[in-house]
Amino acid sequence: MKLRIAQIGPLWEDIPPPRYGGTERIVHYLTEGLVDKGHDVTLFAAGSAHTKARLVSVYPRSLFRDKIPWWNVMYPLLHITKAFEMEKEFDIIHVHLNQGSDFMTLPLCQAFKKKVVFTMHFPYEFNYTWAGNTEVFQKYKDLQYVSISNSQRKGGENLNWLKTVYNGVDTNLYHLNLKPKDYFLWLGKFNPDKGTEEAVMAAKKAGVKLIVAGAVDKLEGEDYQYYLDTKPYIDGASIQLIGEVSDQEKNVLYGNAIGFLNPIKWNEPFGLVMAEAMATGTPVISFRNGAAPEIIEDGKSGFIVDSIDEMVEKMKIISTIDRAACRNRIESHFSTQKMVDGYESVYNQII
Amino acid sequence: MKLRIAQIGPLWEDIPPPRYGGTERIVHYLTEGLVDKGHDVTLFAAGSAHTKARLVSVYPRSLFRDKIPWWNVMYPLLHITKAFEMEKEFDIIHVHLNQGSDFMTLPLCQAFKKKVVFTMHFPYEFNYTWAGNTEVFQKYKDLQYVSISNSQRKGGENLNWLKTVYNGVDTNLYHLNLKPKDYFLWLGKFNPDKGTEEAVMAAKKAGVKLIVAGAVDKLEGEDYQYYLDTKPYIDGASIQLIGEVSDQEKNVLYGNAIGFLNPIKWNEPFGLVMAEAMATGTPVISFRNGAAPEIIEDGKSGFIVDSIDEMVEKMKIISTIDRAACRNRIESHFSTQKMVDGYESVYNQII
Repeated sequence: MKLRIAQIGPLWEDIPPPRYGGTERIVHYLTEGLVDKGHDVTLFAAGSAHTKARLVSVYPRSLFRDKIPWWNVMYPLLHITKAFEMEKEFDIIHVHLNQGSDFMTLPLCQAFKKKVVFTMHFPYEFNYTWAGNTEVFQKYKDLQYVSISNSQRKGGENLNWLKTVYNGVDTNLYHLNLKPKDYFLWLGKFNPDKGTEEAVMAAKKAGVKLIVAGAVDKLEGEDYQYYLDTKPYIDGASIQLIGEVSDQEKNVLYGNAIGFLNPIKWNEPFGLVMAEAMATGTPVISFRNGAAPEIIEDGKSGFIVDSIDEMVEKMKIISTIDRAACRNRIESHFSTQKMVDGYESVYNQII
Repeated sequence: MKLRIAQIGPLWEDIPPPRYGGTERIVHYLTEGLVDKGHDVTLFAAGSAHTKARLVSVYPRSLFRDKIPWWNVMYPLLHITKAFEMEKEFDIIHVHLNQGSDFMTLPLCQAFKKKVVFTMHFPYEFNYTWAGNTEVFQKYKDLQYVSISNSQRKGGENLNWLKTVYNGVDTNLYHLNLKPKDYFLWLGKFNPDKGTEEAVMAAKKAGVKLIVAGAVDKLEGEDYQYYLDTKPYIDGASIQLIGEVSDQEKNVLYGNAIGFLNPIKWNEPFGLVMAEAMATGTPVISFRNGAAPEIIEDGKSGFIVDSIDEMVEKMKIISTIDRAACRNRIESHFSTQKMVDGYESVYNQII
C-alpha cells in the first residue's frame, strides 16, 4: 500500500551529510529508499538537503554551517510545528530524535500520536548534557518508539517500543576486499568515548601498523583537548594519522585493513563504523559496549573483548575470521535495504 | 472577581531570588500580590520557591544551583507541560518568557490560548543566542502579550499586545533619603551592555567618587573577561568596588548616592536598578536606550543623555533634581502594587 510519509530530520547538518553525520545519513537512506518503493514521501529538513522526496524547509542551509549553536530552539520549533501543522496530509509522521530540542515533539504530537513514530538516535540512558531526559521519556512512554539496537533500550525497557530497526549501510558504496594490506584501522571523531587512545595502545602492544582516520571538532572543547592529548602517541611510522575521509576513500581504507579496532567506552546505540568496515570484509574487534555484540557474531565476524590486552590477543588471530562472512552479515542484517524494509513494516503495523 | 490564576515562573533561580534575578523577583511580587488581593494562585516553580500561593514543582531546587546548563530543555518541558495539563483548573495562565526553552509554550498552548497571557522579559529584538526568535513570535503573533515597557515592542509592534505593565519596585524595601552622601553609584552585573566601564570613565572625567557594586558571573566567559578588563580602572580611592549586595544593603547604598549612573548600551526592556535607585530618592542619569526615557522624566527625576561627556555635564547639576520627585514617580507608576493592579486589569480584560 502506498503511504503518505513525513520524515522529520535534523536541521543541523545537510541531508545527506557531506562527511560525518550518522543520523542525517540514516534519514537520507530511509527517505530515498521509501521513495524508491513508491511511497509519497515528504522530507522536513534544511533547504540544502538533496532528495527525490518533496522537501519542506524552514531554513535554507544546515544550522551548523551558519554557526547557529546546537542549543538553539527557535528553528527546531519552526521546523517541528510546520510538519505537525500539516499532519492531515500524512499517514505516518516519522520523527528522528537527535538533539535536546527534538524532545518538544513529544508533547506537541498528542492530538495525532497514533500516526507518529519516533526513532531514538542516542541511548535511552544518555544524561550527558540532557539531565531529565529519562523523566521526559517516562512521561511520554506510551508514544511509539523504534530502537536502532536492543541494547539502546537499557533502562527504558518499559517504553512502548514497536521494534528494533538496525541502521543500514549502503552495500553499493562498500565492496568486499578479500586481499587486505597489513594495517589495522580506527576511524571516527576524536572523543574519549570513542577510544582513539585505546586503539593506539593496542596497536603498540601488538606491534602492528595502525591508521587513525579521525575528524576533530574544534568547537567541542573536550574533543579538541582529547585530540591534542592523543596526538603525541601517533608516531607517524607504525601509527599514522590521516584526516576525515570521503565515502569513496573510506571504502578503500576499510577494505585494505586486516581488522577494525573499536574500543568504545560508551553504549553507542548502533555504531555505523563497525557495519561499514564489515561491509568491506574487514572484521571488527570491539569492546563489549552498546550494540557491538548485536552487530558482531563473536568469533565469526569479529571479536568482542573486555580489555586492551584481550584486544591485542584477538588481533593476533584476526586472519582466522572469514572476510566473506563479515560482508554476508551486513548484507543479510544491516543493509539500507533491510532498514527501509524494517521501517516499512513498522508503518504498516500502526496504520 | 476572584480568579484562579497560574503563574509559570522560571525554574533556574529561586523565587524570590536571594540576590540577582530580575524575572524571578517580578514573578514573586506578582504572585504574592495576587494572593493578597484574594485570588486563588498557583505558582509553577522550582521546589525551593517560597510563596503563599499553591506551589507545583517538577524539580526540588533551582536548576542553576544544581549546575544544570541553561540550555537544558528537559525540566522546562516537564514544568510547562505539567502546568498546561492542569489548564482546566485555571481562568488565567500567565507565562513568563525568559529563556529559549520557554518558547515551547507558544505552540503548546494553542488549544486554550484565550486564557494564556505572556509577559516578555527581554526585548522583542534580541538575537543574542536566539537566532530565529522573531520568526517564532511572528508565527504566534496572535497570542496575548504584555510588554514591560513600550520600547520593548520595537520591531514587533504587530504582535497582539494587550498592554504595557511596567515592572514594579517594592516601595517598602526602599526608603526616601533626602540627605545623601557624596558618591555616585553604578550597580549591576558586570557586562559590556551594562556599561560599567562607561560609568567609571564618566566619574573620572567628572572628578567625583563612584561606588561600583557588581556581581560577576564567572560561568559567563564574556562577563568575566569584561570584569577583568574593567577592574584596573577601579583605583580603590575615588572609584571603589564592592561585591554583590543584599536588598537591605542596596537600600542604604542607593539612598546615600547623589546620583545613579546607567550608561547602558542595550535596549534593556525595563531596568529595575533605575526604579530602585529612584525609590530612595536618587536621580538616575541614563543613556537613551531601552525603557530609560519611560522611567525617567528628563530633567525632573533624572537625565537622559547620549554620551559620556553629556553624562559628566548632568552629574554637575544633579542636585537640581528634587529627590522627593524621584520617589513619587516610583510610587505613582512603578511600584509592585501598581504592577499587580496592572496585571489584574489585563486578566479581567481577557476573561
